Amino acid sequence: MNPIEGHLPLRSPLHDILAPSGIAVVGASADPTKRGYKAMVGLIKDGYRGEIYPVNPKADSILGVKAWPSVMEIPGNPSLALICTPAATVPGLIAECGRRGIKGAVILASGFGETGEEGAKLEQEMMAQARAHGVRIIGPNTSGIFNLHHRVNLLALDNVKPGDIGIVSQSGNMLLSLALEAQHNGQVGFSTYIGPGNQSDIGFNDYLRYLGEDEHTRVATLYVEGFRDGRKFLQVARDVTAMKPVVVYKSGSTEQGQKAASSHTGALAGSYQMTVDLLRQSGVSVVQYSDEILPVAEGLGLLQKARGKRVAVIADGGGQATIASDRLAEAGLTLAELSEDTRYKLREILFPQASTANPVDVAGSSDANPSLLARCMEIVSADDNVDSIFLVGMFGGYSLRFAESLLGDEMRGAEAMVDLSKKTTKPLVVYSLYAPVKPPALRRLHEAGLPVYTSIEHAVRVLAALGERGEYLAQCALSASEEKEYATDAGRALLSQAQAQGRNLLEFEAKSLLAEHGIRVPVERVVRRSDELGDIAREFGDQPLAMKVVSKDILHKSDAGGVKLNLAGEAALQTGFDQIMASAHAYDANADIEGVLITPMAEKGVEVIIGMTRDPIFGPVLMFGLGGVFVEILEDVAFRAIPLSHHDAASMVEQIKAKKLFEGVRGASAIDKEALVELLLSVSRIVASYPQIAELDLNPVIAYPDGYAVVDARIIVKESL
Amino acid sequence: MNPIEGHLPLRSPLHDILAPSGIAVVGASADPTKRGYKAMVGLIKDGYRGEIYPVNPKADSILGVKAWPSVMEIPGNPSLALICTPAATVPGLIAECGRRGIKGAVILASGFGETGEEGAKLEQEMMAQARAHGVRIIGPNTSGIFNLHHRVNLLALDNVKPGDIGIVSQSGNMLLSLALEAQHNGQVGFSTYIGPGNQSDIGFNDYLRYLGEDEHTRVATLYVEGFRDGRKFLQVARDVTAMKPVVVYKSGSTEQGQKAASSHTGALAGSYQMTVDLLRQSGVSVVQYSDEILPVAEGLGLLQKARGKRVAVIADGGGQATIASDRLAEAGLTLAELSEDTRYKLREILFPQASTANPVDVAGSSDANPSLLARCMEIVSADDNVDSIFLVGMFGGYSLRFAESLLGDEMRGAEAMVDLSKKTTKPLVVYSLYAPVKPPALRRLHEAGLPVYTSIEHAVRVLAALGERGEYLAQCALSASEEKEYATDAGRALLSQAQAQGRNLLEFEAKSLLAEHGIRVPVERVVRRSDELGDIAREFGDQPLAMKVVSKDILHKSDAGGVKLNLAGEAALQTGFDQIMASAHAYDANADIEGVLITPMAEKGVEVIIGMTRDPIFGPVLMFGLGGVFVEILEDVAFRAIPLSHHDAASMVEQIKAKKLFEGVRGASAIDKEALVELLLSVSRIVASYPQIAELDLNPVIAYPDGYAVVDARIIVKESL
Repeated sequence: MNPIEGHLPLRSPLHDILAPSGIAVVGASADPTKRGYKAMVGLIKDGYRGEIYPVNPKADSILGVKAWPSVMEIPGNPSLALICTPAATVPGLIAECGRRGIKGAVILASGFGETGEEGAKLEQEMMAQARAHGVRIIGPNTSGIFNLHHRVNLLALDNVKPGDIGIVSQSGNMLLSLALEAQHNGQVGFSTYIGPGNQSDIGFNDYLRYLGEDEHTRVATLYVEGFRDGRKFLQVARDVTAMKPVVVYKSGSTEQGQKAASSHTGALAGSYQMTVDLLRQSGVSVVQYSDEILPVAEGLGLLQKARGKRVAVIADGGGQATIASDRLAEAGLTLAELSEDTRYKLREILFPQASTANPVDVAGSSDANPSLLARCMEIVSADDNVDSIFLVGMFGGYSLRFAESLLGDEMRGAEAMVDLSKKTTKPLVVYSLYAPVKPPALRRLHEAGLPVYTSIEHAVRVLAALGERGEYLAQCALSASEEKEYATDAGRALLSQAQAQGRNLLEFEAKSLLAEHGIRVPVERVVRRSDELGDIAREFGDQPLAMKVVSKDILHKSDAGGVKLNLAGEAALQTGFDQIMASAHAYDANADIEGVLITPMAEKGVEVIIGMTRDPIFGPVLMFGLGGVFVEILEDVAFRAIPLSHHDAASMVEQIKAKKLFEGVRGASAIDKEALVELLLSVSRIVASYPQIAELDLNPVIAYPDGYAVVDARIIVKESL
Repeated sequence: MNPIEGHLPLRSPLHDILAPSGIAVVGASADPTKRGYKAMVGLIKDGYRGEIYPVNPKADSILGVKAWPSVMEIPGNPSLALICTPAATVPGLIAECGRRGIKGAVILASGFGETGEEGAKLEQEMMAQARAHGVRIIGPNTSGIFNLHHRVNLLALDNVKPGDIGIVSQSGNMLLSLALEAQHNGQVGFSTYIGPGNQSDIGFNDYLRYLGEDEHTRVATLYVEGFRDGRKFLQVARDVTAMKPVVVYKSGSTEQGQKAASSHTGALAGSYQMTVDLLRQSGVSVVQYSDEILPVAEGLGLLQKARGKRVAVIADGGGQATIASDRLAEAGLTLAELSEDTRYKLREILFPQASTANPVDVAGSSDANPSLLARCMEIVSADDNVDSIFLVGMFGGYSLRFAESLLGDEMRGAEAMVDLSKKTTKPLVVYSLYAPVKPPALRRLHEAGLPVYTSIEHAVRVLAALGERGEYLAQCALSASEEKEYATDAGRALLSQAQAQGRNLLEFEAKSLLAEHGIRVPVERVVRRSDELGDIAREFGDQPLAMKVVSKDILHKSDAGGVKLNLAGEAALQTGFDQIMASAHAYDANADIEGVLITPMAEKGVEVIIGMTRDPIFGPVLMFGLGGVFVEILEDVAFRAIPLSHHDAASMVEQIKAKKLFEGVRGASAIDKEALVELLLSVSRIVASYPQIAELDLNPVIAYPDGYAVVDARIIVKESL
């Protein structure tokens, strides 16, 4: 990719701000410890081509550039202001910026919403000025921005190489850390960095869209403490991940971390697992550890995506082959089963004691002949069962470890790997224990854009990300989520009636709404008077029945003594009816009791739960889990944003840790997973079609080898406005 | 520590081999790609002070050292032979070594037990010669050994610094990788390396004992694919960890990895989780990822152990403080609650926007004043609530990032940290994003023996290891496991009788053995004839009862229709008795049926399982878990080697992931954990006292807020010899 000459017509409204035509540095300073000095140095040293306007009432010039006493007195037309002065000065300065036609301001000061009530008030005041004067805000409480291809280096970072990784990070230290790591171990450079800080105005979704459209950015990398508009972010992510990889590290995986994040940027953390599930649903590559961010971003940027998750390992030591095998399995990758042909070809070139089953262990065959490893990689790359190739061991160090005379052959090996990477559609991931030494063969791979990882663990994270990305793009092409409208008149009527009466749906109403949309619900009768019980008894014969109170005023039916199970025959029904009525009245004398719902007892099966909430950050989200202790104690659940695609629904069922239960244990048959998938899709359609639904719970649903039973359904209706 | 002059009287029988008085290199070579060349170079270059005897029938001398045509013709008295020749030559060479008085041989060749049946035969042949001639074997299939303080460098590793980390690794690449990492990022060197290979003779336990006794080794670090005598290893580990840290990376955490390991060294992997639990029980620091081995070994070697797990974080950026908080919580560490006094002292020196709650975020206070961080560390180190101190951020890089003029203050900060590390008993763990740059302040810490970590993740693993080690040593001092003999005559009689009759204990016998050792078992009656049922019915009144068939021939009582539940009254008992008898006869017409056991139904509570097996690697091991799906589907269990200390038993209960269930959920009361702990201890005593017991299962045990009920007990008796 070539650097931009002049301005390209980018669509993002952030372009004027992030690739500004001129910059005012408010609080520019000659004191080298001040940010107002660093920014000036950064712009001048990097050769920024627009005008620079230092603003400082006490100086005539800063670093040889004429200074101006105030923003109002700047003569030109900068599009961006960097504001380095304290929090209290910001609202007034924003007003001045607006009056001078400045389109955006980067606010470094902290002391806003993240510090408490008073700061929040100041933040509101700032935003009022920004809206009144049409100024967009980056921050406050940000470490700043850079856009290296435009030579805008407001952080004055030294030694940071222009390249194609874009970064949005709520931690300035994280950016520094990535830049230093890239300089020392990586082979990538950076395009744009943005510290979104408190996101008072511009948020992660806007920045991600910018990076998505930025031709200099090949991978967007985000450190996120909290999203403001998570739903919008997911939409943008879906668009961007279709074009380029997006890597997110989300902090707050623990309560302890969430508390720390909230005192840092005032962000609402939200549920970590929900966030991760929803990001993955949108094609984002989520990394779990901070030291994996750069390796994964680098790998996704430089390497081909993998068609799938079947990895061929070529190793020159059995121990590291074993470690690689463990890590691959833990990451959900598998060892590809090599074809007989592949194994034959490997045997032809390897010592007899070599292992040609995957992981391939050359067992000394390459000691005097390191380029043999490249030959092995080529052989396995031709195998249809292989999606990616993982070289593990000491390649690059043979000439150091064994004999200098091996250098020529080792360089030929590197050259062959480079050639192979150009010919094959499968990614080659290289771990070398000699990576820290940077020997010539590894430098050659480096130059050719083949990253070399310093840890098996990191290399495996890269393989996983490449496989996940390949599978995501493939399923995207097959399985689009639908935005069709499914609401029916009958469904609308049920909800409007409840809404008008200021109540939620009764259980039987909820089930009839489900039935309206093709969800199979059990046979149910609502009995209002005890003299109807004779007919019911005859209808159901000796089937065991359940009775449940029907009342808009009783939410927790069991607590009110409103549930009786395993009844059969008229006498038992009569007693049950009377007891339920008596208990319900005793529980709440004012409760409006409509009657009793009677339904056959569900047969035993696997209990699952389906729930929908409208999350304050991400909007309507579906949850799926196993019933009982699995949800309550183990939090073994999966989340997806609505609407779901078929793939989304199917992957929810597969994500459950205790999914062995679905396959049948203790002699039970496997349950009908496809029926559950259809059920999840139907619920997704219902939620998407009726905005009146605030919450929905099917708990429990019993899953069977053929279908399911929705035993209880609860639909909470939004208060009408 | 000073290098050894001459030979110290070490107790280990391996001393003559690992610190040899003279070395024969069988297969010495002038070809630089051969191991027989490398070994010669290593010995000569490092200045080995004993005699070197190259053995090669085709050479007069190798690298200027007179060569000998065969082992038999060597004139001197070497105590070690390095055998570089192919597998087939080994048995004959071992015999020659023995005849020449050589005490140990390092066998590099592969092609033994790890390759299959034929290789296994060769390995047996080799061992037969070794035993016949009194030669101890290191390997075969080993990468070799070094002992740098004795200048024995059979691997001819360049640039590996003598130091105090000892390594035993079934992967030669792992050693290389650690050595390179130490050279580039670490500050440690190595004492002895041993590749145990197939462990045909000498195994991990012997090597660990050697390192435990070696005065040059401060930390023993092991990469293990499989133990041969795991029980012995645990005993040695217990002794050694009392003196110095032992770090183990165990491969085979997945089935895929176990398969790979077995084709590598032919090791039986054993259950990964069991291995990890038992190692930790013996005080071993287990690391999960290969890239954590060196950081953890280095940290344990250089830093003080922590009193506990309460960490104070000092950060100069909120984002990394957040990441650190997440990782600490995930690792089972907590953020120390800083005292009011500490927070007051911090507020006195920090900017108002700084956060003085832990994690402490100085929020810019140190930008012009980096030594402030050392002052913060000193303040929190004085807080009684703090066990360890974690510095997170850009220390070392202030003078690079902000202004060169800060270098002086930054160096004062480093000096203050070094001083603090000498004064305080609490470990100081430093993560710096500038670590890869090695700036002067970090070099100063380095020189003073304060490691600086390049990743938050690795630093947290070190903090966890220090905390775990501190707590292990503290509980060791308090809670010794007892080896007392508890067997009673009655107990012995029960087991001998069963053994004599070639059967296992019947359920009621098993329970009476438990009762004999103070375990509370339910009231039980064994009924042999139906005319006894009237008395039983009167005794138990309207309590619901369970009936179970009593027969040595029926192991799975339910499958045989041999269990009836919830019976009350003589009539029901009569029917139950008849049905059980009929079903049991139908199930197995030849079964010897003793009668029916009758016992009150256990009340509802939390179901747990206690099981004992005699593991082929580790001997008698106790397992504890929650009943039902928790064990079967989620494998949520804890293992400890018998005998258990009180701490062992208590930590088993705390280890269960679903332990929330013990605290009481859905309004249930918390269960009596101490009663479970006592039960585990009693079972441990029983198993330790009766070697006749092959397996024992209490499944289920129902735990209550006051005590427990052992609902079923099964004791499998060893076949008598």
